[in-house]
Order: sequence, then C-alpha cells, then structure tokens
Amino acid sequence: MASIFTNPKFYSTTPATSIFASGPSNPTIPHRSLLHFYPKLSSHPPPFPYASTRKAAVSWSQQQQTPPITATYPTPKRRPEYIANRISDPSYLRIFDTTLRDGEQSPGASLTSKEKLDIARQLSKLGVDIIEAGFPVSSTDDFEAVKTIAKEVGNAVDKDGYVPVICGFARCNEKDIRTAWEALKYAKRPRIHTFIATSAIHMEYKLRKTKAMVVEIARSMVKFARSLGCEDVEFGAEDAGRSDREFLYEILGEVIRAGATTINIADTVGINEPSEFGKLIADIKSNTPGIENVIISIHCQNDLGLSTANTVAGACAGARQLEVTINGIGERAGNASLEEVVMTLKYHGEVLFGGLYTGINPRHIYITSKMVEEYTGMHVQPHKAIVGANAFAHESGIHQDGMLKHKGTYEIIAPEDIGFERSNEAGIVLGKLSGRHGLKKRLEELGYELDNEQLEGIFWRFKAVADQKKRVTDADLRAFVCDEVFQPELVWKLQDLQVTCGTLGLSTATVKLIDANGREHVACSVGTGPVDSAYKAVDLIVKEPVTVLEYSLTAVTEGIDAIATTRVLIRGDNSRTTTHAHTGEAVHQTFSGIGTEMDIVVSSVKAYIGALIKMLLGFKEKKSRDNAAAERTAISA
Amino acid sequence: MASIFTNPKFYSTTPATSIFASGPSNPTIPHRSLLHFYPKLSSHPPPFPYASTRKAAVSWSQQQQTPPITATYPTPKRRPEYIANRISDPSYLRIFDTTLRDGEQSPGASLTSKEKLDIARQLSKLGVDIIEAGFPVSSTDDFEAVKTIAKEVGNAVDKDGYVPVICGFARCNEKDIRTAWEALKYAKRPRIHTFIATSAIHMEYKLRKTKAMVVEIARSMVKFARSLGCEDVEFGAEDAGRSDREFLYEILGEVIRAGATTINIADTVGINEPSEFGKLIADIKSNTPGIENVIISIHCQNDLGLSTANTVAGACAGARQLEVTINGIGERAGNASLEEVVMTLKYHGEVLFGGLYTGINPRHIYITSKMVEEYTGMHVQPHKAIVGANAFAHESGIHQDGMLKHKGTYEIIAPEDIGFERSNEAGIVLGKLSGRHGLKKRLEELGYELDNEQLEGIFWRFKAVADQKKRVTDADLRAFVCDEVFQPELVWKLQDLQVTCGTLGLSTATVKLIDANGREHVACSVGTGPVDSAYKAVDLIVKEPVTVLEYSLTAVTEGIDAIATTRVLIRGDNSRTTTHAHTGEAVHQTFSGIGTEMDIVVSSVKAYIGALIKMLLGFKEKKSRDNAAAERTAISA
Repeated sequence: MASIFTNPKFYSTTPATSIFASGPSNPTIPHRSLLHFYPKLSSHPPPFPYASTRKAAVSWSQQQQTPPITATYPTPKRRPEYIANRISDPSYLRIFDTTLRDGEQSPGASLTSKEKLDIARQLSKLGVDIIEAGFPVSSTDDFEAVKTIAKEVGNAVDKDGYVPVICGFARCNEKDIRTAWEALKYAKRPRIHTFIATSAIHMEYKLRKTKAMVVEIARSMVKFARSLGCEDVEFGAEDAGRSDREFLYEILGEVIRAGATTINIADTVGINEPSEFGKLIADIKSNTPGIENVIISIHCQNDLGLSTANTVAGACAGARQLEVTINGIGERAGNASLEEVVMTLKYHGEVLFGGLYTGINPRHIYITSKMVEEYTGMHVQPHKAIVGANAFAHESGIHQDGMLKHKGTYEIIAPEDIGFERSNEAGIVLGKLSGRHGLKKRLEELGYELDNEQLEGIFWRFKAVADQKKRVTDADLRAFVCDEVFQPELVWKLQDLQVTCGTLGLSTATVKLIDANGREHVACSVGTGPVDSAYKAVDLIVKEPVTVLEYSLTAVTEGIDAIATTRVLIRGDNSRTTTHAHTGEAVHQTFSGIGTEMDIVVSSVKAYIGALIKMLLGFKEKKSRDNAAAERTAISA
Repeated sequence: MASIFTNPKFYSTTPATSIFASGPSNPTIPHRSLLHFYPKLSSHPPPFPYASTRKAAVSWSQQQQTPPITATYPTPKRRPEYIANRISDPSYLRIFDTTLRDGEQSPGASLTSKEKLDIARQLSKLGVDIIEAGFPVSSTDDFEAVKTIAKEVGNAVDKDGYVPVICGFARCNEKDIRTAWEALKYAKRPRIHTFIATSAIHMEYKLRKTKAMVVEIARSMVKFARSLGCEDVEFGAEDAGRSDREFLYEILGEVIRAGATTINIADTVGINEPSEFGKLIADIKSNTPGIENVIISIHCQNDLGLSTANTVAGACAGARQLEVTINGIGERAGNASLEEVVMTLKYHGEVLFGGLYTGINPRHIYITSKMVEEYTGMHVQPHKAIVGANAFAHESGIHQDGMLKHKGTYEIIAPEDIGFERSNEAGIVLGKLSGRHGLKKRLEELGYELDNEQLEGIFWRFKAVADQKKRVTDADLRAFVCDEVFQPELVWKLQDLQVTCGTLGLSTATVKLIDANGREHVACSVGTGPVDSAYKAVDLIVKEPVTVLEYSLTAVTEGIDAIATTRVLIRGDNSRTTTHAHTGEAVHQTFSGIGTEMDIVVSSVKAYIGALIKMLLGFKEKKSRDNAAAERTAISA
C-alpha cells in the first residue's frame, strides 16, 4: 500500500483541502459563480439580479468544477451599520428571526414572557438583525412580552454598536398597528411589520375585499404606522407566492410611496419551487416602482420541504432580508430554518453566490436550537439538518472499530462551527469528584451563563446524580439547567409522591403538595396508570380543570439508570384565548411544563405541576393585564 | 358586505380553482415551463436538458403567472413497462426507495427481517419502481432479509404487470457482488447496485487508490456483476458531488461500456446546492460517452437541508431515477424524502417541469410513513413537511372558533391525498358499542390488512380500552396494530408486574415472566426509578447483559388517561456486528422494542422484553445463519 503514496501518478498532488482555502483569498483563482448557470436573460425580462452581487467575471465552474472539501469560511466581515431602508454593502443579507411570532404560532408551542425574553437574548447573541418578538394585539401576555423584549434586548447595544431591531406583527388596521407601536416604541430600533393578503383566493374568501380596497388599506395603514413616529415599517404581502404579478407591483409600489422601508414577499402556503420563487423576486425587483429605495424581504413556508432552497434562491435573486425561525418551527410544516439558511450561505455564499454573507455567529446555533426545542416542546427529529441528534452522529456513542483518516470524507461542517462541542469518546465530562468550578466552566462552555444561586441549585442536582450514575454528560447538564433555571415561580411545590402500579391495573398515587403559603395538602387517587393516578391526585388539590394535550418522555442519557425528561402540554378548560395572526380566529392558549428526574413518574408530576403553575400565573397576572388593556383601550379610543 | 359579491369590479370573475384545473387539459392555455427561467445555454455547454421534456413552446409564466390554488392533479398516467436501461416515456421518473438500505443505516434504526419485509410490502403498495432492500454482505441477517424480500415482494406481480425491482447494495469487490446476487436472484427483476467513491478526498484518504485504479475496479466489477447473469446493474459514483467532472465522464463512460444500465450520481455529503447539482447532471448528460443508453439516477443527502430541491433540480436536468427514503431518514441529516419529492412533482410536474411524473400512489404515503417511524424509531418532527403531525394541524383537536370559508386559503395538499383520513371534529371514530365489523372496516381504511387472529387480538384490546376511555381514535388503533401485530415471537412473556415508586427514591419492582416452555420466573429489584427497577428485575431472569441506548415514550392520545407507546433501543453487550457500507467499519447491532399500554411502566417493560426477544431470536437463528455463511463461503471459494 505504501507504494501508492510514493507513486508520482497518485491523484492529488496538492492537498485537497487547499482548493478552497486558497480560493477566495487568492485573486488569481477566480470565484465560482452562478453566472455560468444562470446566464443573463436577454431583453425581456430585464437582467437577472445575480449580476449585481458577482465579484468575478470568469466562472469558477469553467476552470475548477470541484466543490471545496470542507467548510473553510472566509474571514467574517463587519456588519454594515443599520439604516432601515438600505444596506451599504450590497452583499450583506439581514436575518429576520420570527421564532417568537410565526414559530410560536405552531400548535402547542406557546411560550411564557420569560421564555420569550430568554430566547430573544439568545437571538441577540446569535446576531440576528431583526427579532420579530410577537403579535402584540393577540393577547395581553404577548403585548407585555414584546414590550419587555423591546426595553431590555432592544436597548442592549454591544461594543460594536450592534443591537437587534425589535419588530412586532400587526394586521392592516389601526388598532393592531397602534398596539404594536405601544409595545415596540421602547426599543432603540423599533419596527412595525404590517401585512395583508394579496392573492385572489385570500382576498376573495378571507378578506372579502376587492383589489382596489386592499391597495387602499395597505397604503393608508403604512402611512398610519409612519404617522405614529415609527421610521422603520415593513409591509408584508401575504400569499404573494400565489398572487398576480401586476397586482404585486402595484400594491408594493403604493406602500413604498406611503413610506414602507422593507417589503416582504411571503410564500405563505409553501407552494413555490426555487426557480419559480427566484423569478418572482427578480420580477418584483425589476418591475416595482421605487423598489430601489427599500429592502426586499422573503418569507418561505416549508409545506413541500423546499423552504431553505427557496430562501437561498430568493437571496440570489435580490432579496436582502431573510425571514427564518430556529429549527424551522412554525405552523404546519414550519418556516425556512435559520441554521440551514445560514450554514448554506456560510458554505456557498462566497464562491457560489458571489459573496453573499450574514452577520450570524454560527457558534451560538446549537444552544439556541436546544433552548427553542426545550421551551416550545417542538421536537427536532434526529435527522434534522445541522442541529439534529444524528447530524454529527459519527460523534455519538455508537462504537465503530476504526476512525476514518480524514474527517472531511463524510463531514462538511465541523460540529464546533455551530457550537456543538465534541466530548471525549466515552462521553464523560464530569465525575462525582468534580467541584463547583469544573461544573461552572463546563456550563459556560455549553453556553449557559448562570448566577450563583442557579449554579448552586444545579451543583446539588449534579452531586445527587453523580452519586448514582457513573457518568454525567453534557446532555445531563443541559437537562439540569432546563429543569432548575427555566422553571416558573413556585405557586405549588411537589413535596412527596408515592405510587403503586403494575399489571393488576389499580394504580394508586398519593401526593403531598405545598402551596405558596407553606401549607401542606395531601390527596390520593386511583387511575389507569401511575401518571394518570398521580395527575388525578394533583387535580384533587389544585382544583383547576385542564386537558392534557400532549405527553412525552425522553431518556436523555444512555443506560437503564437514565435521567428522564418529561414534557406535558395542557389546556385549561377555562383558559383565555389568543388571536391567530392570519385567520383572525380565537385560539385557546396552551401551557407546557417539563420535569427532569431519574424516576419517570416523579418527572411526569413535576412537569404537570410546572404547566399548571404557568397557567395559574397567567390568571394571577390578570390585574396587570387588565391595566394594560385599559391603557390600549384609551389609545384606540 | 354582500355588495362586494355583486360588484362587477370584484377581483375574481372566474373561480380561482379553475385556473389550474383547465390548464393542462386545455391546449389553448399554454403550460408554464421552466424554459422561461432557464433559457437555452448558447454553444458551450450544450443545450440544457429541460428542453427535452417540455411540452409547450410558449411559457405559462409569460401569460399566466399565478400558481394554481390547490393541487388538482392530472389524471394518473400508465406506468411504462420496465426495461432496465431505458424508459419508453421520457417524462417518467423512476422512484428508487432506499429506506431499507441507506435509511436503515441511521444510527439506531436497525430493522429485523420481518420488519424489512413488512416495509417492502408497503413500498410495493406505494408503487416504488425499485426497492433497495439491503446490503447483503453486511450481515447474515441482512442477506436473509434481502433474499426473503426478493422471493416474496419481488415476485408479487399485480394485475397491471407491476412488480418492484429488488436491488441490493455492494461495494466494488467480487465477494460483495456475488453475495448480493445470491440474495437477489430469486426476484423477477433483480438489480445489483455497486459503487465506488470518485472524489479526490475519498480516493486519497478512504480508498487509497489512484484514479486509474478506481476506473479499472469499477469497470471490471460492473462486468463481473453482468457475468453472474444480472442484466440490471446500477453503478454508483460515491461523493460525485465533490468529484472532478472530467474524471466522472471518464469512469461513467467506462462502466457504461462494461454493461451498467443505470448510473447513480450521489451527493454523498449533502454539499450541493440545487443550481449547482442541476448543472452537474446536465454536464454528465452532455459529456459522458454512451449516456443515452442508460438511466441517470441521483442520490441527494440532506446535510444543508437542500436534498428535496436538489433531487427536483436533478430531475429537471435529466435524471430519470430518484433515490429517496420514507421520512427522509438516513445517516446524519438523512436523504431526500420520498413524500416531499413525490408531492412536489405531483404538484408542479405537469405545469412547471414540463410533464414529469412518477408512478407513486400518494394515498399510501401516510401509512408507510407511520410504519417506518414505528419500526425504525426515527421520530418525525411535528413540523416535518407532508407527514409531520402538524402538517395538517388545522385538522387537529386544537379548537378554533370559526372555520375558514375555503380550505385552499392555507392548505395546498388535501390530507386525503396522502391517505391521512380526516376524522370528524371530536376525533371519535369508534365507541364502546362498536363491533368487529366496524373495527375491521376502520382498520382497512387506515391501510391495515389483518388476518382474523390479528383482528381478534386487536378487538379485545379495543374493547378493554373503550371501557376505560370515552374515545378510541385512529391513533389508538394504530398503536394497537403496532403493539399486537408487529411483535416478535414470544420467547419471554410478561405475566405480572408490581411497582412501588415515588419521591422516597427506593423504587421497587417485582416481575413474573413466562418462558417459552410455560415456566414462571419471578424476580424483584430496586432501582433509581420504576422503569430502572423493573428492567433490573427482568435482567435477573433473562440474564443477557445489554445497554439501553435510547428510551422514549409518547402518549398517543389526548387526555390524562392516554395510551402510552414506549420505545426502547438496546445493544447486547455480546452482540454481533454489521458492516458499514461506506466506511467498511464494523458497527454493533441494536434492537428496538415497543410497548403500548395505559400504564407507562407496563408499556416500558413490554418494550424492553420485545427488544430482548429480538436480540435473542438473532442468537437462536445462529444455526441458519451459519448455514447461510457456509453457503456464501462455498460461492466465494
């Protein structure tokens, strides 16, 4: 075998990895470019916009057709200064994250205000340009959440001058827009995002309005938003993917004249295909009056599994703001996922897309993904691109007899690039002799910044588990953080639980809960299983009628003595409703709880109590909500 | 409001849904076509292959730019007769399903022979053209599974003459190819799929071979496969997405001369982007000697989330076989998913892609997806396109105060199209008074064809649950089928279980198991939780050292009294290994078990015993495997 390596006829004379590393930085090697594949269109329609971002006239593909081996990214560029309606660098793409608005509208993904604030802070670390924080008119909770995010995250300017724009969603009516502004105005860079449907089917069956009426509503409401003092107004054309082209040019031209600074083209039903969607954006860029004075944004749903490709195609065609969500969550099949879009651009932007880049720091992707998964309960499948458990499965505990000589043979993105730390082969990160310092250090490496009290709580959990388990892994630590730090205020606390169950079919549970005043309450119940009997015993004490909508449980670590994380989603039978942004219908709010214990029945009960507390806190906040409502009524009047 | 509808200026004069319905069948309305967007390239490179499939010279987009409202599919065409190296209809796309080979290689997705056979039967109902049934040399189990599928599914010709090709994977060596042929030869249409890597990095670091050596191996092994009597030979270029173009033309030309009938272009690491991948296929089609005598196949991994778009782009560029898996499972981020590719083609094929179509009957998609999810344990995320739980969530139990006037406003594919039956609003399909007939009818509607004994088992489960629960839903029925019908032979049976657990931390379980000879065995154990203690008690009886790799539990129905489905994945500490197709490394086999009960501890124990039995049956089969191994040794000698 050794002779192969000394054979002068051997295939690769320069190391394969150098092909790309030297490419973009060496002016003698031309960039690959899509120009080769998308030639300039002749006279009608006008020149395809890829041309505007290209950097080299000679195509890479003509000389060097082999893609790079692994991702060796170009040096990050400085994020251009924020100006609402233009970007100084034509290659810069704004990332607009709508996890907290469109993502939260996924069935069962409701978030509390605290969870929304945590996620917004994380999105800011990730470096998203715009955070769509919610739909303020939908409920008083959402109004308060957007206001809090505007005040806190929207004013946390970093040393480079970066602070995310805080955006709020509003239908095209004065009440929605005014309410959004009341919540947003505290941010350094507030943005109102108002929208109306532009497709024939939506105008006919949902809006019941003529084209002329829709244009007039859009124009006047953009004007109204500007009149409130908001200088950053995004107008969205809902279902643009099925809208008539000429009508789009007309309505977009009108809202631009009325003061819109960003116009958003939404493939609301996920029907478009990349070439078709790229063409739509190119056509809008070419035919809409005044389009050169605004930013084109795109929003792609994933109903056919094409959202990432559509988003990238739209960017290549001239869009400069991309609307995405973490893990691709959202209604139905969700949205384009931030991680897929960002990593595709990171990988191909320089060479294939003529220099397109974003300001995202991908090293925060993994932890943001985990946080959104935990908070929303929207599980990510193991084979999800970029962030799924198997995405780097050659790193997992599955034993293989050998190791490949070169990671790049099957790995195009290194796990570290998205902040997924490789642990050593056995997965042991901490043992029972580890101290507070080691624990704190590892938690920081995992991206968690905790105060001393939180750290102490986790430390004792860690010690208790380290006594029983041989190995405490990163996954265990994440579970502790999730359970300890992200729990709601204790209105009810589980003191004791005792359960008997089995094939006899007479499961019996006894629970002892402590209320906010320290009083003990004990109840017992029989049920169809241990969780059912325990939940019924809790119900006897808490006395709030609820429906359990979902229940799931995962062992987070290998071994029979695994730590179990339980998630439960409930709907209070008397609970409040929130307004659906698109359909305008009232939707009952749901509440999720998580519990993490080595005993699955105990973790199930903790999760249930957590969900109940979230719901009860909602009721407790009624007074402040009523005040807020009164405030809004005063404004509308 | 009524005046809007009588206003002659109202937007839509013809019903919106008629735009598409009348399009393709009416010759006066030209088809939309990608030609408008992908104009013919000038002289070099040669004409883009979209041209070959187009049906109308005038572009739809020039006259009618609005996509259709909902999917009103053209009348299904007849599947062309199978000829290995050509297709009589240039618009027909073969669907090659590799769920049982590439999909099964996902970490933890191992399938038993019986499960593989069930899935192969289901794939045949779905109408896939080629079933890649496994990698016969990897293990004796896989050899037997492929052989059984070749004999049974590979000879079940339907009334239209359809029978799937049964394909087996083989590296480019005589032993792999001969072993594959020994398993496949029983099928009416057997195919050997042999492959070798063609990228610089793979040839250098994995194969350690020169280009010339790789060409010679490929050529001679295709010849060898043909020499065995196999007239349908697919050659795969692994990592073609990163391979040198000229080298691809050369090696593909050589294998075509040697007798390959299909050549497969694999984006093995999921690095390509749709335009780039389409260009690769177009270039291969234009520059490879003899390409007109074979079928071009494509295989796209999903590492950047672009696999569906890449597959569609490849089809538009001239590929006529698409390699996919159910639910998109596979290593790392998986493969292009059958359901996304098929529904995108179903939706856009006629109009946007010049008439491209497949022979898949999408009404079997949902049940196939559920079967693969249950058997492999690869969970599908709620927002997975087409088959995720939320894909049609406006159909779910979440209450909304109103109903939209037109389903098409937010729904582009009707759930019925993929075989997801809408149940009535309350989700009640059967009550406690329902009889065997009603149950059987509903199960058939759900796609399950059961014999009388199986039906009887499910009927009694149904009655027992209907007595305790008010509502028995489709999800409950699926869980029963999963638990009753798909269980392995009973080597051990759970007779009784009794568990005590709680916050005291001294969980204690007593189990009584019955062995194959009817003898009772009782053991008790303490553990960190109810499942841990019960599993330890089982271990005391079964005495097989195993590691639990994964444990998960889902309540399949709403309500506290839900039915819980538990899945557990184990690895026997002394278990056998299987060979990884690409890396050639030995991988330990894993075994999954599922249990469905109202008591989560009982369902957990049933799942564990199921997994143990699968592992033990493997050991029991040792004799037959030794025989098979002897047979293969005799062939290789």
